[in-house]
Amino acid sequence: MEKKVTLGPRTLLFPMPAVLVGAVVDGKPNFMTAAWCGIASHKPPAISVALRKGRYTLKGIEKEKAFSINIPSTDLVKKVDFCGMYSGKDRDKSKVFEVFYGNTEAPLVEECPVNLECKLIHSLDLGSHVLIIGEIIESYVSADCIKNGKVDIKKIDPLVYTTDLQVYQGLGEVIAMAYHVGKQD
Amino acid sequence: MEKKVTLGPRTLLFPMPAVLVGAVVDGKPNFMTAAWCGIASHKPPAISVALRKGRYTLKGIEKEKAFSINIPSTDLVKKVDFCGMYSGKDRDKSKVFEVFYGNTEAPLVEECPVNLECKLIHSLDLGSHVLIIGEIIESYVSADCIKNGKVDIKKIDPLVYTTDLQVYQGLGEVIAMAYHVGKQD
Repeated sequence: MEKKVTLGPRTLLFPMPAVLVGAVVDGKPNFMTAAWCGIASHKPPAISVALRKGRYTLKGIEKEKAFSINIPSTDLVKKVDFCGMYSGKDRDKSKVFEVFYGNTEAPLVEECPVNLECKLIHSLDLGSHVLIIGEIIESYVSADCIKNGKVDIKKIDPLVYTTDLQVYQGLGEVIAMAYHVGKQD
Repeated sequence: MEKKVTLGPRTLLFPMPAVLVGAVVDGKPNFMTAAWCGIASHKPPAISVALRKGRYTLKGIEKEKAFSINIPSTDLVKKVDFCGMYSGKDRDKSKVFEVFYGNTEAPLVEECPVNLECKLIHSLDLGSHVLIIGEIIESYVSADCIKNGKVDIKKIDPLVYTTDLQVYQGLGEVIAMAYHVGKQD
């Protein structure tokens, strides 16, 4: 039996994604980096992201009731880190990426291989953070990232944010097929 | 500009963790595999996980108001997949892992290098799924997974669940330091 150490209440989840949350704020597209993001429901398809209160991006999401979740590839690491370090209050981030739009006010990042366009359906005040829940109304995937009708994870090459060490990582090799390796008679 | 394809509303998030959600159900510890999990708040430290309505584990969480999130290493892939394929209704999963307890009814998995003990604070009905939000009241980390006071991601060696392809993967190499690589004057 491994010896366990208690670290007190800590937000230790591995892995976490490094996503770009997009919203129009003060009339301009803005993007912030977030790792506290998870799928919330299948029907309706929904996604949650936790934003610290007072965040510039939160202001835009609450006003426009729309936002995007954009999945960057590892080659975007510098821009992703930039969008995590500086607030849209202080830096104009509207020109960092090429932006396109779907059916809402949510700005979508052209350079990211996966984009989820969301309508705000819940906003849950938890204390330091507001958990924003969006219905995914459309998903956009770069054509060259689809292989045999499936999203090709090698091409997506997503960025992983590792908490505590505070580093970005890539994904490793496939280990096993899900719904298969654990099958028993 | 890459050509984008619309796939309709899809729950496409990369990467997602493969975690074991623990709860006591009908008087016995039970574990189910989930990928739809994200950190929800810093203060209080909170985590969310989406469970399909009617899930056996959900029944236990709602009754006991406590659950655990356990982060498995890649060497647990078979057991993780097993816990994702079979319901506690049909299979007794109380003996799959060595179990320990903290301050609540939440069963914690000894073999997992990271365990978060949670008290249920919100339960949000979204449609097909209920988004369970737990306050993290304690975190447990295997002693050999801590290096220089930080959680050592190489030792944790967490399991990634990749949706659409439905595979488990490992983590790749460190690419860059966060709050550093994107710094500008």
